Amino acid sequence: MILPASVRADTAAVEDHLASLFESLPGPAEHLVESMRYATMNGGKRLRACLVLAAARLAGGGQVPDGAIHVAAAVECLHAYSLVHDDLPAMDDSDTRRGIPACHIAFDEATAILAGDALQTLAFGILADPGVSQDAAIRARLVGELATAAGITGMAGGQMLDLEAESSSPSLDEVRQMQAMKTGALIQFAAVAGGVHGGASASLEAALADYSRDLGLAFQIADDLLDYDGDAAALGKPAGQDAERGKGSFVVLMGLDAARQTAVELIAAAETALAPWGAAADDLRAIARFAIERRS
Amino acid sequence: MILPASVRADTAAVEDHLASLFESLPGPAEHLVESMRYATMNGGKRLRACLVLAAARLAGGGQVPDGAIHVAAAVECLHAYSLVHDDLPAMDDSDTRRGIPACHIAFDEATAILAGDALQTLAFGILADPGVSQDAAIRARLVGELATAAGITGMAGGQMLDLEAESSSPSLDEVRQMQAMKTGALIQFAAVAGGVHGGASASLEAALADYSRDLGLAFQIADDLLDYDGDAAALGKPAGQDAERGKGSFVVLMGLDAARQTAVELIAAAETALAPWGAAADDLRAIARFAIERRS
Repeated sequence: MILPASVRADTAAVEDHLASLFESLPGPAEHLVESMRYATMNGGKRLRACLVLAAARLAGGGQVPDGAIHVAAAVECLHAYSLVHDDLPAMDDSDTRRGIPACHIAFDEATAILAGDALQTLAFGILADPGVSQDAAIRARLVGELATAAGITGMAGGQMLDLEAESSSPSLDEVRQMQAMKTGALIQFAAVAGGVHGGASASLEAALADYSRDLGLAFQIADDLLDYDGDAAALGKPAGQDAERGKGSFVVLMGLDAARQTAVELIAAAETALAPWGAAADDLRAIARFAIERRS
Repeated sequence: MILPASVRADTAAVEDHLASLFESLPGPAEHLVESMRYATMNGGKRLRACLVLAAARLAGGGQVPDGAIHVAAAVECLHAYSLVHDDLPAMDDSDTRRGIPACHIAFDEATAILAGDALQTLAFGILADPGVSQDAAIRARLVGELATAAGITGMAGGQMLDLEAESSSPSLDEVRQMQAMKTGALIQFAAVAGGVHGGASASLEAALADYSRDLGLAFQIADDLLDYDGDAAALGKPAGQDAERGKGSFVVLMGLDAARQTAVELIAAAETALAPWGAAADDLRAIARFAIERRS
């Protein structure tokens, strides 16, 4: 599927912004900066950045507010950090990422650990910078919410539960919780942060939270579907990798048809959550559909 | 040497606060929380936390302001994260830390990577929380300054340069810069953050920056001196470990006597920077002297 022109423009703007960001990072640890750039500028879909910008545009009444691009960049840096660390030999031990060598292969393991560490730091540093917003309360709130999304009850906690699940047989509910933490929390942060930055009303903020919770779960089910029947070349990592390790996947636990049906229903619910905002929320709806129709 | 009663009380308060903090962290990733607690509650000197509280007390006119203990805890979490990752096999490959198994030995490597990651996240989350200060501008500023101290021009960048120095022969200036980044930046953050939190004047803030820059360098020289002639049991890690690897140490580059003399001069300069504040700055002076007279 083709995303709307506004979302494609957002993707391009984020790429440009990230490229400038890594150009501008000061020395003397140039090798570290290069590894961070490599890990971030790798052809990702920028789903999270697009969520930030589309939600900010909706909240901002059709215009993306100044500074929202920094929030989008921060989310992409945080996401890139998580991928670098997930790929490490002690974690998921994946040599490739999006069809190219993983950071610890292209550089080395120590550099990859530090690149992930410094990308996390950079994400928080970006959010705290006045460039994001003149309102320090908004900046502090975004930092706090990113910390919640990335920490023990979010992404890092979810990755821990995922590693523990390798040696157990998690139930569907346990997998749902684990994925909501590991993947869902940052997707939810992206949409809500865009709304908060754009000055969303309480009702829009709540709707963005509902929308992105459903989207996040659908996104992960779609990932498991891609993993099940995906083409390794399109995906950029060996297909079936997770299943081989006996991790609980939605496809295994729900069955193929039920997983597909659930993803479709979740996206419908995500779209419905934004019904009161009519056509102004069309970009977010298109992003939601893209999340389950993508090929990689 | 014995630290003043007020500093010893600060140390105890930080220990209690950290213990309560880890007790209160929510599930379901309990194993991860346990590894974070293990890595943080390990008998450290709490130098950085004491700097936060002593500087906050000086800035606050003799009283530690409410919320400063959270800043102290955040710095200790950030420091604990750096030690966990530094000890990893791909980094300094150290099996022990303060005489007990390093986090990746007590748990496993994947858990240690995640524990470090989540401790970094926790540090930023703590600083963004309104418990630190009702003034969001102070919280956002502390987040931004911690990101600078921890990132590519600070701790992570310094660790990268340190790893690169293993295969080169760094000059004294290069080692000084590397250590200012790797160790100095977080020590400087601690003192300045305490001042900022306590409402320090511009002149006190500048003096705290001068004081802690000198202290940080002296601290690292003292570390190299301990490494050179230290007792492995007292230090809790194999003595001479860094020297064996051919890393640039101040002792090797300056000579033993010059290193000792420089550390003494730096601490004298650190004490002098606080001269205008008279006896009110005695705690900070005692901490500075402790940094070079410690046995571990």
